[in-house]
Amino acid sequence: MKRFLLLICAIISITATAQNQNEIISPEIASGNTVTFRLKAPDAKSVKISGNFTNPEWAAVDLVKDSSGIWSFTSSTLAPEMYSYQFIVDGVMAHDPKNLNLLRDAMNVFNYFIVPGGRADLYKVNDVLHGTVAFRWYDSPVIGGQRRMSVYTPPGYEQGKENYPVLYLMHGVGGDEEAWLELGRAAEILDNLIAKKEAKPMVVVMTNGHANHAAVPAKSPVSYMPQFGGPDVFNGQFEESFRDIMKFAESNYRIKKEKQSRAIAGLSMGGFHTLYISANYANTFDYMGLFSAATVEPKNPDSTIYKNLDDKLTLQKQNGYKVYWMGMGKTDFLYTPFTDFRKKLDAMEFKYTYRESEGGHNWANWRMYLTEFVPLLFK
Amino acid sequence: MKRFLLLICAIISITATAQNQNEIISPEIASGNTVTFRLKAPDAKSVKISGNFTNPEWAAVDLVKDSSGIWSFTSSTLAPEMYSYQFIVDGVMAHDPKNLNLLRDAMNVFNYFIVPGGRADLYKVNDVLHGTVAFRWYDSPVIGGQRRMSVYTPPGYEQGKENYPVLYLMHGVGGDEEAWLELGRAAEILDNLIAKKEAKPMVVVMTNGHANHAAVPAKSPVSYMPQFGGPDVFNGQFEESFRDIMKFAESNYRIKKEKQSRAIAGLSMGGFHTLYISANYANTFDYMGLFSAATVEPKNPDSTIYKNLDDKLTLQKQNGYKVYWMGMGKTDFLYTPFTDFRKKLDAMEFKYTYRESEGGHNWANWRMYLTEFVPLLFK
Repeated sequence: MKRFLLLICAIISITATAQNQNEIISPEIASGNTVTFRLKAPDAKSVKISGNFTNPEWAAVDLVKDSSGIWSFTSSTLAPEMYSYQFIVDGVMAHDPKNLNLLRDAMNVFNYFIVPGGRADLYKVNDVLHGTVAFRWYDSPVIGGQRRMSVYTPPGYEQGKENYPVLYLMHGVGGDEEAWLELGRAAEILDNLIAKKEAKPMVVVMTNGHANHAAVPAKSPVSYMPQFGGPDVFNGQFEESFRDIMKFAESNYRIKKEKQSRAIAGLSMGGFHTLYISANYANTFDYMGLFSAATVEPKNPDSTIYKNLDDKLTLQKQNGYKVYWMGMGKTDFLYTPFTDFRKKLDAMEFKYTYRESEGGHNWANWRMYLTEFVPLLFK
Repeated sequence: MKRFLLLICAIISITATAQNQNEIISPEIASGNTVTFRLKAPDAKSVKISGNFTNPEWAAVDLVKDSSGIWSFTSSTLAPEMYSYQFIVDGVMAHDPKNLNLLRDAMNVFNYFIVPGGRADLYKVNDVLHGTVAFRWYDSPVIGGQRRMSVYTPPGYEQGKENYPVLYLMHGVGGDEEAWLELGRAAEILDNLIAKKEAKPMVVVMTNGHANHAAVPAKSPVSYMPQFGGPDVFNGQFEESFRDIMKFAESNYRIKKEKQSRAIAGLSMGGFHTLYISANYANTFDYMGLFSAATVEPKNPDSTIYKNLDDKLTLQKQNGYKVYWMGMGKTDFLYTPFTDFRKKLDAMEFKYTYRESEGGHNWANWRMYLTEFVPLLFK
């Protein structure tokens, strides 16, 4: 037994070609919610950290080196929230070797941590009953071929026989079918809200909104790097293919098929998708969530998906719905076009709930919007 | 529309505090299967690469800098296989910013790539029908609390009504319930072998074999760093709890409950688990796979799980089974104790299939063993 462990240690030491980080703790959240980051790098000339908590946001800030070659940086007091960061070692991005919490945001990999408390506790993996997260492939005749989606089913789904309501949840232009799980903490938010009885148990279908990509890069049969805005963005193809998604979800999951049991929501480009899908799929959804929605001009405004939006919205209003929820950050770069869109809805007397938050076009807002939107559903 | 994309670009540029890597391709696999790695790092003094293809394996090898600050290294000709690597920038581990394929091996994060051809094509995401991968939480009265497992269901599982055979697949001492998916490419191997009709469609249950951890670090309610060998290793608790796993799998999945439809396999510590679980759960499994098994002394040899192994093996032999498959690398550090174990089986006239491969205690062997073992099952 001892021999076995000694040999395992020998194997590890072969891989320990980089600086030994064993004695380091990083990140370390102090009681006052300042956070200290540490990296052992005696041979580096410069170590910086860039995060959504550096000042200004994402600025590269210097760490300071001590006599043992350990660099450190302590943040100001951070509000409870989930934060992302990278180290920059002599100009090169590096992850924190002491932090195994990693996520990918489009083409960048970051470490993350959660400063607990308040709403941020909804983002943590708590000791509550957990739902299931499944990665499914569905056939899309509209786009062609198999495509991947993520599906959350609530605790107890597999043991029971009942049918559940469904939320279709869509990402932004830099995202994919894993974005709401990784950056949006959708599974944790649902687990925690359901445990607190603040949300109804529901199935959440998280799609890939890029018609030209079947899956996240690591699961795509074709190699690619994510871009912000490929030729498929705002061209109507994804919205058109949404019927393939609903067909798959409804024939593969025990979900209710009535309007009052269907919700659709999305952030940025996904808000655009929510706007057009809910307007085009007449009388299909009772709950709409537009999070920092990109209410922009489509690429091909004459396509069936995009033309006659006002008529479609008028019909949507006549058909009725329960919640049309819109969230927007005060400093979001989409604030002005979105305000124009709201004025248009006002002129049509199209009812909605409007939630204005601090901050801009970021996941802190989108996670928050999800925690506020989900409790309104299926009541 | 243009404005939207321009603003998105502005957001990206905020985060582009590290060197711009846009013009770089890395890794680049040339037609002769040499692989070139590149990193833009004009300010670094030293850039090295450590991988399971450097010479000797995992050695840190220098990249060479060109006049534009791009460092590069070209490997020798690599055999078709999946490979892992890290950059080391002035002594600090860094991932390849041009390669979004990342995996975690215990407490280290690596990039990976696949040199295609031959068996390695089974490790790729190919354009075949894909099964589902789900992350499930089950209750374990033996260990206490909820624990996480990964479950692969084959293409068509959700649409049909039939019952499937099941393979319980276990990791080694540095692994967890995601190891076989990330490092072992289990979902890709199953998808590809099923598509080629070289494997029967089956459900694969991938457990977490550490009794003291409920889940991988990022999904654990309690923060921890993986270790090679905690107090729970080889102490019998996981093997004892295996009945909770089987109960959950059999009540949550349409799997057959006859011995001839049950297989169990594992690598290293998981081979040890396979040995003891299949010997203790009498007449339960017809197919056993011991991959580079750690046939070592248990920590508490007097526990019910570990004592009287020879009697249990004799009973197992009397009850009969279809395949007892064992794979071992010629240079594996466990070769000698494993040879002793084989001699013991020989003396008992306990039948098995023995597969000796090149190489040692590594995932290249374990992936290969899986591709050889799975086609033998449920025939």
